Parts: sequence; structure tokens; C-alpha cells
Amino acid sequence: MTATVHTFPGKTTPSLDAMVQLVAADLNQVNAVILARMQSEVALIPELAGHLIAGGGKRMRPMLTLACARLLDYGGARHHKLAAAVEFIHTATLLHDDVVDGSGLRRGRRTANIIWGNPASVLVGDFLFSRAFELMVEDGSLKVLRILSRASNVIAEGEVNQLTAQRRIETSEDQYLDIIGAKTAALFAAACRIAAVVAEREDATEEALDAYGRNLGIAFQLVDDAIDYASDGATMGKDAGDDFRDGKVTLPVILAHARGDAAERTFWRDAMEGRRTSDADLAHATRLLETRGAMADTLDRARHYGQRAVDALGPFPAGKAKAALVEAVEFAIARAY
Amino acid sequence: MTATVHTFPGKTTPSLDAMVQLVAADLNQVNAVILARMQSEVALIPELAGHLIAGGGKRMRPMLTLACARLLDYGGARHHKLAAAVEFIHTATLLHDDVVDGSGLRRGRRTANIIWGNPASVLVGDFLFSRAFELMVEDGSLKVLRILSRASNVIAEGEVNQLTAQRRIETSEDQYLDIIGAKTAALFAAACRIAAVVAEREDATEEALDAYGRNLGIAFQLVDDAIDYASDGATMGKDAGDDFRDGKVTLPVILAHARGDAAERTFWRDAMEGRRTSDADLAHATRLLETRGAMADTLDRARHYGQRAVDALGPFPAGKAKAALVEAVEFAIARAY
Repeated sequence: MTATVHTFPGKTTPSLDAMVQLVAADLNQVNAVILARMQSEVALIPELAGHLIAGGGKRMRPMLTLACARLLDYGGARHHKLAAAVEFIHTATLLHDDVVDGSGLRRGRRTANIIWGNPASVLVGDFLFSRAFELMVEDGSLKVLRILSRASNVIAEGEVNQLTAQRRIETSEDQYLDIIGAKTAALFAAACRIAAVVAEREDATEEALDAYGRNLGIAFQLVDDAIDYASDGATMGKDAGDDFRDGKVTLPVILAHARGDAAERTFWRDAMEGRRTSDADLAHATRLLETRGAMADTLDRARHYGQRAVDALGPFPAGKAKAALVEAVEFAIARAY
Repeated sequence: MTATVHTFPGKTTPSLDAMVQLVAADLNQVNAVILARMQSEVALIPELAGHLIAGGGKRMRPMLTLACARLLDYGGARHHKLAAAVEFIHTATLLHDDVVDGSGLRRGRRTANIIWGNPASVLVGDFLFSRAFELMVEDGSLKVLRILSRASNVIAEGEVNQLTAQRRIETSEDQYLDIIGAKTAALFAAACRIAAVVAEREDATEEALDAYGRNLGIAFQLVDDAIDYASDGATMGKDAGDDFRDGKVTLPVILAHARGDAAERTFWRDAMEGRRTSDADLAHATRLLETRGAMADTLDRARHYGQRAVDALGPFPAGKAKAALVEAVEFAIARAY
């Protein structure tokens, strides 16, 4: 089977529908675990956690665990608890991210830190993170614990790295790829890999699913970073231009800066260092990204990683699960169009 | 052997010296693990973590693991990595606490959030927390993982509970004990209990060491909360009156409020709700704590838990390790004098 990433406008728009259908019954079980295990006698915990967990998330990462388990014909139920653990880790990082970035909008809703304050967001994040480890301990696989504790550590390291790179226009494409590989792709990779662990498959299967998740994660983040310059809050669910105003040096900026003339480079430095943050500056930035082909090439890079994700699925038999995983890649990229 | 908590001024001042001597060689190993495992290519991580980890901490919790292991004549080395994990968990909670409280001074030094900002403190805390789990996974005991993931979750829950109780003068003594049992005593208990796990002792030994650590932790926190009204930044290493100004309803305040007349109750409500925060108000509060016997009785409660900690050691044979653990209790309480 040769699979191609279809991302051209005009074709049927790729969606997560196939994956949602594939894992619907399992996802109900995961949601039941999530709901049961985010409870606490301290009412603020389920209140705050529920705002984010119930608030329109796609459950992308737990769905990947479930879909990969289906790909391997896994017939057990261990992955429900572990997929919930993955979602808890993800939610904890979102809560802390919003504090770190001072964000006000996520998934089209006000962020928890705006409603309940930074202290509550930090601490409920810690609660969910440690609860994720309790779920893994209950499952009892040291291998899963190793994969997800490593991923969690890599994520935190990537977030600090991003903080260090913030407002530094000198950030290279390699550094940028290191950062998104850590802060986004590591958890995608781990979410997929643990399906091979519960299905007790050989190392090569673990590696293949890890590669699928990792490349999908990179594609996903590249598209996110492009969309930040091409959408408004309504379509993206977060404030457009957030990265621009926060001085986050993402790939579109790196490419436009590298290809720009002296005046453009000065503009980008000023912008990233916080001296050009108006709506007119953002509009100017968006034009430069277009004229320098930075948007198109960022999406081209995304397609490259998307194709690698699809090719990592090569060893697996065709079927509904594989088709759903391929379409998830197409969906990740098509969001930009 | 009958052991008594000696806390009267005039006697030889109890110290941690006996414990430090007892575990000195082991602690060197633990410090080597800590130093090696807080490293990262992202320079900000060891820089920030080192500020707190190298910055005058007593290593109380890892020393408890080591001393309890000595009490059990444990001859292995597994506890070095696990004691480092305990210290990483503790350091992560300190980093997040200082963000939550907006603290400026800890152990007599400027806090990390003041020097590097809240975002870095949140994320390096996450790094250390996940690194702690990596260390536990390397050790490979699911029992230890269960104990420390549970303790971490209880700590986070206790911190959120404290946040909810903040500025609420109605907080009861029971609620307060729940909070400090979670935020402080849970990690003391876990640090001691894991020594019995690595030494492969029966459940009763685990329970006894857990009880020792838990009661010591409660005594320790009660004394801390009393000291906050009885010291200056120089002797305590943090800003005196912090709890008062933050509206933290600790036991001294609960007792003074319960025993106060109408005017005093109004004062305490105003103070906890943030309407009386001047130095004169703090001085007035301190006087009320004295006249109502709230300081004396908080320390009396601390001695009660200290005595329970000592009695939990009853089943263990006399010797250097037991003497050091008893003196640690005496030290925890004597800090108030």
C-alpha cells in the first residue's frame, strides 16, 4: 500500500472522523477514567481541570494510543487507563503553558489562569501530572512508566529551551526543531509507542509507532505555528498573533528572517524583541511571510514530516485503523488550508 | 527504651548533627546523584535548580530516607537514587510554592522566581518532578513508585486545599491539619517508608516508619507556622510575617481567633482578608497570639505529634540511628526556642 498525504484544497477535507469512529467505544472508557480520576474532595480541582478537559479538546493524544492499539489488534483494556494518563500529562502541560505564556484564550475559551489565577493552574497541573503517574503505577508496566516519565522530562526540558530561545531572532531551524520535537512530538510519540507495549509487540513495532507519532507531532506543531499567522481567534480557538507578540521564534519567522533583506531583518529583530507588536506590525509580518515564501515552505516542511509519519506505518497491514492514522496526518496538515 | 522529646530551653540544644554524621557517606552519594541528574544541555535548568538545591537546604527528607535505612541495617545502595528523587520532588514543590505565594526570600536567599521569573520556576519544577520519576523507574520498584506518586498527588491536593482556605478565617483546626498533613507530612512519611521497601521489610515496619515521618512532618510544619510570627528574615531565612500578610490561616491564628473576643475576631478577619497588613498590625497579631496562649499551644500540639513520632520508633532497637531520628524530632521542635 502506498499512502500519500493529500492536502490540496478542493479535495474532500480530511478530518478526524474516521479515527473518532474507530475508537469511539474505547474513548468512552477513557473519558470515564478521566472523569473519575480528576475528582477530589478539594472542589477547585475537578472544577478547574474540568474546564480544560471538558472544554473542546480533541483528545488527539489518547485517540492515538487507542488507534495504534487497534492497528495492533490489541484486545485488552489496559490502554484505557494509560490513554487517560497521557491526556492528564497533556492537560498538565497546557495548564502550565498558559501560566508561562500569560495566555488568555485557548480552544476558544478563556484560559484557567485567567479565571482561577496562576497559582491554581500551577497546582492543579501538578495534581494531574502526579495523578497520571498513579494511573501508570496501577497499570504496573515499568516500560510504560519509563516511556512516559522520559517523555514528561523531555517536554519540560523543551519548554525551558523554548523560554530561553524566546525573543532570540538568532534561533536556528535546528534549534527550533529540537524545541518542537521535545515540547510537542515527544508526547505524540510516547502516546503511540505505549500501544505497542500493552500489545506486547517487539521493539521494531514500538519504534515504528514512535516514529509515526513523533513525525506527526512535528507536522502538527509546524502547522500550528503557521496558523498563528493566518487565522483569527474564532477559527483557531486562541488569540491570533500570540506567537508574534510573545516573541516566539517559530519556523515561519526563521525562514522569513533568513531570506529577508536588511530592512526586513531589522523588522523581525524589532518584532521578536518586543518593539513592534501592533496590529499593523502583525499585518506587515504576515505579508513578509507570504512574499518570502515562509508560510508555503513551513507547510512544505510539515508535509515532509507528515509523509515520514505515513511511511512509518509501512510495516502495518492495510485496514480501518491504518487508514484512520493516515487521515489523522492529512488532517493535521489540512488545518492550514 | 523510653524516649522523651526534650525541648526545654537551657538543655543542650538539639541539632541534626547526629543525623548528619550518621548518614554523611550516604549523603555524599545522594548529592552526587542530585548533581549529575539535574544537568541538562539547556543551561538554565542546572543554573536555576542549583540555586535552590545548593542553596543551604538541610536535605532533611533525603537524610530521613538514609537514616531510616540505617535503622534497618540496609546494606545496599538503592536508597541513594531514591533519596535524590525525594529531594527533587521536594525542590519541585518549593519552586512551584514560591510562584504560588509570590515569595521573595527562602533560606535567606532571593527565590528563583524573583531571579529568573515565574515561567522558568514553573518549568524547571516540572523538569525536576519528572526527573524524580525517571530515577524511580531506574530503581524499578513499583512499590516505591506507588508510594511517591501517591505522596506527590496528595501534596498537590493539599496545596490546592491551602489555596482554597487562604484568607478564610473560618478554617478549622481539622482542615488545617488536613492541609499540613498533605502538603508537608506526606513527603516526610514517604521518605521514611521507602527505606523499609528497599530493605524489604514487612508491612508493619513500613507503617511504623510512615507514622514516624508523618508525625515528624506535622510537628515540623506546626513549628514553622509558629516561627513565622516569632522571627525575622535573618534567623528564619524567609520573610517574617509572610503567612500573616498572605492571609494563611495557620494554627496560631485559628487558636487566637477561636479564643478572642469580638474585637479580636474582627481584627483577625480583617487581617486574613488583607485589610490589616502593616508592621503595626503584625506586631498586634503577635501580641494577641501571646496573650491568648496561641503560640504556646501551637508548640504544645507540635510536641504532641513529636512524641507520637518518637513512639512510632518503639519497635526498633536502640542505637545510633534511632538516637539520631529521635534527636531530629527534638530539633524540629527546638527551632521555636
